[in-house]
Amino acid sequence: MENGELHIISTGKQSPETLAEIIEEIHPYIDAIHIREKTKTAKEIYEMVMLLIEKQVPISKIIINDRLDVAYISKVHGIHLAYHSLPLDMVKENFTGFRVGCSVHTIGEALHAQTQGADYVTFGHVFATNSKAGLAPRGLDQLRSITNSVSIPVIAIGGINPINVRSVMESGAKGIAVMSGILEADNPLGVAKEYALNLSI
Amino acid sequence: MENGELHIISTGKQSPETLAEIIEEIHPYIDAIHIREKTKTAKEIYEMVMLLIEKQVPISKIIINDRLDVAYISKVHGIHLAYHSLPLDMVKENFTGFRVGCSVHTIGEALHAQTQGADYVTFGHVFATNSKAGLAPRGLDQLRSITNSVSIPVIAIGGINPINVRSVMESGAKGIAVMSGILEADNPLGVAKEYALNLSI
Repeated sequence: MENGELHIISTGKQSPETLAEIIEEIHPYIDAIHIREKTKTAKEIYEMVMLLIEKQVPISKIIINDRLDVAYISKVHGIHLAYHSLPLDMVKENFTGFRVGCSVHTIGEALHAQTQGADYVTFGHVFATNSKAGLAPRGLDQLRSITNSVSIPVIAIGGINPINVRSVMESGAKGIAVMSGILEADNPLGVAKEYALNLSI
Repeated sequence: MENGELHIISTGKQSPETLAEIIEEIHPYIDAIHIREKTKTAKEIYEMVMLLIEKQVPISKIIINDRLDVAYISKVHGIHLAYHSLPLDMVKENFTGFRVGCSVHTIGEALHAQTQGADYVTFGHVFATNSKAGLAPRGLDQLRSITNSVSIPVIAIGGINPINVRSVMESGAKGIAVMSGILEADNPLGVAKEYALNLSI
């Protein structure tokens, strides 16, 4: 099995400086860094990306959530669309050259995303997680159904830790995405290494 | 004196359907329609623009506030930037072909916008207005200072009605922008015509 991709997603709760400091330290172990800052303005997200670039974080690893305009202007390589974002097919048609991902929650949504040209999908939440407290996790069986249904990579998200990550990969995921599990850990570098190690064996 | 431009700016409070119905009726009297919907998602703003296009509102009159990506994908001709938007010079450099406006509140900001390549600025609020309740209006003298300082068109905003519009134009403005004064009027068409008439004499 090839190495699984390790994505991190910003929590929306950390200051740009704190986030940049953590990412500066851990990025060699991370494949994709999602800037997902729903309450921040275009200018703030742009400045956050500039801060990462200043800290030598590879632009090829940065993915901006929803704000395609910020992604275009800051010349990052990836964008990630949510249900409230611009339509995926319009994005692929008008902005070429981006790796475009999309959040999905059902097989139907995954197939639709694939048809519209998504380069990958994220699916979750797989396990119970504090960020989706009270919502039943979708579980490994549904993950397996999704990975069996589409040919594009499926990145699993939600409650994935260095212990259960193997079961996720064995369900056909091409990688995982982690938020607080790494970014709010006492030792983000140590935890990132632990995830990366378990994604490579 | 040439005819002054009449801009309207969406209030952020009307449903897309209500707004589209009003604009469908009044657009022949309007030069620019700003879609300024701070709490709406990219998808919602995109759908709002599609609704206007469906109702034969000329795409050349539509200006989208802040969401450059929605403007690009929906192929409208104008974008308007606020202080929290992407930097004007980066926008002009990366997205050519748009008429790009910018909100300013001081001579310094107006000069900066002009240097960065703004095609016009909006300045206000000129008169007291409910949408800026408790904030002192900037007045006609400041408007005059701004219009004397820059060579790009200055569109005045804030408390402008069909009566005081002449004094605004005599202060060097190239046009005015109105929100609730037209969009929340009992008879938007009648009021729009009244403004348009007083901008043409």
